[in-house]
Amino acid sequence: MELQRSKWSGWPSSFPLPSSLGEAGGISRNRLISEITLTWRCVKLKLVELPMGLRRYVKDISRELGEEIIFLGDPVYGSCHLYEEIADFLGLEEIIHYSHTPFYTPNKRVVFKVNQLSYSEDVFSIIEEEIRSESGKVGVITNAQFLKLAYEVKKRFKDRVELKRGRLARGLGQVLGCDFSAARVESRKLIFLGDGLFHPIGARISTGKEVLSLNPVTCEQINVEKEAERFLKMRFHSIFRAKRSNSFGVILGAMRGQFRMRDFQMSVRLLQEEGKEVFRIVSKVISPEIIEEFGLDCYVICACPRIVDEQPRFKKPLITPRELEIAFGRRDEYVMDEISEVEW
Amino acid sequence: MELQRSKWSGWPSSFPLPSSLGEAGGISRNRLISEITLTWRCVKLKLVELPMGLRRYVKDISRELGEEIIFLGDPVYGSCHLYEEIADFLGLEEIIHYSHTPFYTPNKRVVFKVNQLSYSEDVFSIIEEEIRSESGKVGVITNAQFLKLAYEVKKRFKDRVELKRGRLARGLGQVLGCDFSAARVESRKLIFLGDGLFHPIGARISTGKEVLSLNPVTCEQINVEKEAERFLKMRFHSIFRAKRSNSFGVILGAMRGQFRMRDFQMSVRLLQEEGKEVFRIVSKVISPEIIEEFGLDCYVICACPRIVDEQPRFKKPLITPRELEIAFGRRDEYVMDEISEVEW
Repeated sequence: MELQRSKWSGWPSSFPLPSSLGEAGGISRNRLISEITLTWRCVKLKLVELPMGLRRYVKDISRELGEEIIFLGDPVYGSCHLYEEIADFLGLEEIIHYSHTPFYTPNKRVVFKVNQLSYSEDVFSIIEEEIRSESGKVGVITNAQFLKLAYEVKKRFKDRVELKRGRLARGLGQVLGCDFSAARVESRKLIFLGDGLFHPIGARISTGKEVLSLNPVTCEQINVEKEAERFLKMRFHSIFRAKRSNSFGVILGAMRGQFRMRDFQMSVRLLQEEGKEVFRIVSKVISPEIIEEFGLDCYVICACPRIVDEQPRFKKPLITPRELEIAFGRRDEYVMDEISEVEW
Repeated sequence: MELQRSKWSGWPSSFPLPSSLGEAGGISRNRLISEITLTWRCVKLKLVELPMGLRRYVKDISRELGEEIIFLGDPVYGSCHLYEEIADFLGLEEIIHYSHTPFYTPNKRVVFKVNQLSYSEDVFSIIEEEIRSESGKVGVITNAQFLKLAYEVKKRFKDRVELKRGRLARGLGQVLGCDFSAARVESRKLIFLGDGLFHPIGARISTGKEVLSLNPVTCEQINVEKEAERFLKMRFHSIFRAKRSNSFGVILGAMRGQFRMRDFQMSVRLLQEEGKEVFRIVSKVISPEIIEEFGLDCYVICACPRIVDEQPRFKKPLITPRELEIAFGRRDEYVMDEISEVEW
């Protein structure tokens, strides 16, 4: 079905716009909805989801896609932020999601666009040096943007390099903020190919291995030891405060992938056994403004494991279900909070 | 079906918790979901939605409800924030929503709890004085918390007082941030019974009438003239900046009640006719951190009409569809942006 389009908008000119825009026309709700849905479908509009870092490229992306698109405004931090319900209610059949790989099977048609970033050739000589200084193998981990590079490294150095497929992350060697299983290799040392300290700190704490963070673009190398220590200090401070808290909000994530019902139930039970005041909370968004209004002493986050990284923005302690176990003597050693299976 | 409950939690003890909590048990996703749903349903858990001001009363509300409840963490600013989809995916059959009256018919069972606040008897003598100084009638408007008081005022002063039912707001004399139709009475002067300046400023600008804001608890009286002027100055500053902008994000609200497709289409078209760069955005949450990442010059908000009140938090101008019309010469007089009909 082809309707006449204006040059830019793609809105069929036959769509009934009431002459007075301030007041509703005489259209029934159901008819309006069906017409809206029809309109969007006809123009094959697509929902485009961009993480924070890519939003400034809306102009380039509009040109790249060359189609009728509508950008998602809501936050996108990972592929747990697939807004299928928004696509549904707009009657859109396809989502284009940038920068992350899937870790559950969506209900809708979703095109995951992950650009493989270009890198400096010097990366290989740096890795070669690292390999030489090791008697055994070296583990390589990465994020979605350097999966091709990691594969290239494996091809070049063959048996001297370990590349493992994780549980949730789908690429070889790929780690997520909530899944470091690809880092649980035999090697003593890990090289993280990518930008930032978010993933390598997680890998360091999750595996106990030495981690070198290597930026493939700038070839900057960072030993994450100090940053991991700082992270742990912050975490133990929150655990300490949790131990002295009386009232707890246990927060269940309501984004698919962040819905951790078993940890939620475990946390509620543990706190009840400890005689604490427990309040159940369910939330898509977990922000200081919203959460701290509850006025409770401490919050247990049964959602994205990495929300606790935002601790400095919150006045009250946030802890993971694993940290809750530590706080109340059910667990001895610090463990990174990870998602082992997508419950919803 | 009755399952054994623990004293507090309401979780049936038969619910399968894997012995090792860190790793997933051998339960299939579908089985897990159906068991979770069953569990929640059995304990008749309810989703409780509290606006910001009431969240600190979680303890009292837990006692008041005396039932198994889970609080919503996401923001609640009005009855457009009914999170039916969260109740759905938790398998909950009832939502208890505090502090707002409905303005569309929900799909789920929703209990709207609006406490009628107590007030000082002096309110009546203040109103009596106002009535005496007027030759005609005096219009009375209010918010959800003082509907009973407004009715009482009408009973006492009969024909000297005008009380009108609005379009979206369901109570007599009730105004919402997005619906001031109850304020469009014949009277020259309006008395707003309630707290804060949000509603009376809207009524002042929407109707052009003189508005006295009377706090029924403290009996504090505020003539909103100055505040309305300050509001208009802020709005015209944004309109001025919009006029000089080249790239526009037109934002469609994705909360039921805030979904304003016709204004969205109108705005996109208008900007295209003006030769501007237009980017379509759909969003549930509209916050500075998320939106400004797009790096556009100006944003047109086709969602809650009152998000533009948050202008000081945003670096770039936010304007309503009505203000867009003003900016590009399609409308002469300033009008408050209101919702005339719920499109979804």
